[in-house]
Amino acid sequence: MSVTMAQAREVLAAQPFSVLLGTRLTNFGPDGVTLELTARPDLRQQHGYLHGGVVSYLIDNAITFAAGAALGPDIVTAAISVDYVRPAVGDLVAHAWVVRAGSARAVLRCDVSTANAAEPVLCAIGQGSVAVRRAPMP
Amino acid sequence: MSVTMAQAREVLAAQPFSVLLGTRLTNFGPDGVTLELTARPDLRQQHGYLHGGVVSYLIDNAITFAAGAALGPDIVTAAISVDYVRPAVGDLVAHAWVVRAGSARAVLRCDVSTANAAEPVLCAIGQGSVAVRRAPMP
Amino acid sequence: MSVTMAQAREVLAAQPFSVLLGTRLTNFGPDGVTLELTARPDLRQQHGYLHGGVVSYLIDNAITFAAGAALGPDIVTAAISVDYVRPAVGDLVAHAWVVRAGSARAVLRCDVSTANAAEPVLCAIGQGSVAVRRAPMP
Amino acid sequence: MSVTMAQAREVLAAQPFSVLLGTRLTNFGPDGVTLELTARPDLRQQHGYLHGGVVSYLIDNAITFAAGAALGPDIVTAAISVDYVRPAVGDLVAHAWVVRAGSARAVLRCDVSTANAAEPVLCAIGQGSVAVRRAPMP
Repeated sequence: MSVTMAQAREVLAAQPFSVLLGTRLTNFGPDGVTLELTARPDLRQQHGYLHGGVVSYLIDNAITFAAGAALGPDIVTAAISVDYVRPAVGDLVAHAWVVRAGSARAVLRCDVSTANAAEPVLCAIGQGSVAVRRAPMP
Repeated sequence: MSVTMAQAREVLAAQPFSVLLGTRLTNFGPDGVTLELTARPDLRQQHGYLHGGVVSYLIDNAITFAAGAALGPDIVTAAISVDYVRPAVGDLVAHAWVVRAGSARAVLRCDVSTANAAEPVLCAIGQGSVAVRRAPMP
Repeated sequence: MSVTMAQAREVLAAQPFSVLLGTRLTNFGPDGVTLELTARPDLRQQHGYLHGGVVSYLIDNAITFAAGAALGPDIVTAAISVDYVRPAVGDLVAHAWVVRAGSARAVLRCDVSTANAAEPVLCAIGQGSVAVRRAPMP
Repeated sequence: MSVTMAQAREVLAAQPFSVLLGTRLTNFGPDGVTLELTARPDLRQQHGYLHGGVVSYLIDNAITFAAGAALGPDIVTAAISVDYVRPAVGDLVAHAWVVRAGSARAVLRCDVSTANAAEPVLCAIGQGSVAVRRAPMP
């Protein structure tokens, strides 16, 4: 059931959408996971900020990977909530961690910050829940 | 303050991230907006479904465009909540509509469905709020 | 598995908190459920409106009852999201309906309106998810 | 603009619904606010746990008070999201804190725990946003 960082990186590399966006997994463990993403011009919206959808993708994916560290790989993300707090103007770091994991479901939080300044600047917060996939009914 | 469909399409075309994903605006008006997206292989996650982050991006963007139809273009999306209901296995159609718009803020809902089958199959629902940007304090 | 309106009313009557607030179940079926509540002075906040917590309680409870109509009585509410759209100034009507129900989980929406005026005035919207309780691990 | 703990307690005492539920404000400051509530039998649901609506009320109210500490008293709560993580079986403690406060809006998080055991047991988490009320348009 336990997932290593190498295995988690293989999962990320098997996600074509994460490859398209250039997402990197830089931390993976019981304290949570960290995904990073470079602020490429093609990830922007019309005002030059990173698109909110890039931020919501990072929250979705960081929460899912952090749940995988607790629940194993056979999971499905049920819901996420996102509050945007500032426009995202640089490379992004998403840190997600388990708030509570049972045998069937985990609830998690996530912070997304920009990392180019001297200290991280928070851009968005999220929370969500992830469930173990159930075997189909006989 | 009123925004035409042609202007809304210019905004979408000015979003490099929406261009990267191939999003199309196919309806824009007081009844809501529709965004569509073809299920390209590079938008998938590791099991072959469209990535949840693609779905959350569509909800974020459809809600923002639907708010723009009500509030004008100078807006900022404050928050979204997403409940995933089924894996997304085909081309996506996101329809967002205003539930309530005041002068300063709008609250909206969004449905995301796949469109390849005989009838649409719902993949996710969302709700969120969008605010008119305030002038900076003097 | 199927739950009748009489059984649902027994469940509501067995919730001391719903009795304290005076909640009534006025519709219960496959199209959704309706909960009603009279705007008593002791349910208000400091400005004379009904407390936001009364509204969020109604969304939580209407979503749970609507899930019970689809999934049966052995359920647990996993999450709700609430967007407040107007102060609540009169008797409340909450209508919740299933957006998608599988065998293990349902996703629902809810509208809360005031009912005293000629037509309903929307006060808040919500969405949430409810899961069938799993048998404990052997 | 600054609000003292005594003033915050006056606001809480001016909320009839909070008086009905017996909510107490036990901490109020820049690090966040704490609301406490005794697990009275009349706050329960049908299985003997505290009603989820009591928990969602506490999250709504703790987030609003924590925003008041940052933004001043003239505010309106825009949205909350709640993930329930365990049934609530004892007296509740809700702690809410500001994640980011600008001049017009704050985003906050909240933890709700039961306090009867040797250490707190987390029952629910929440996040939400609160806006300064705007002057009406001239």
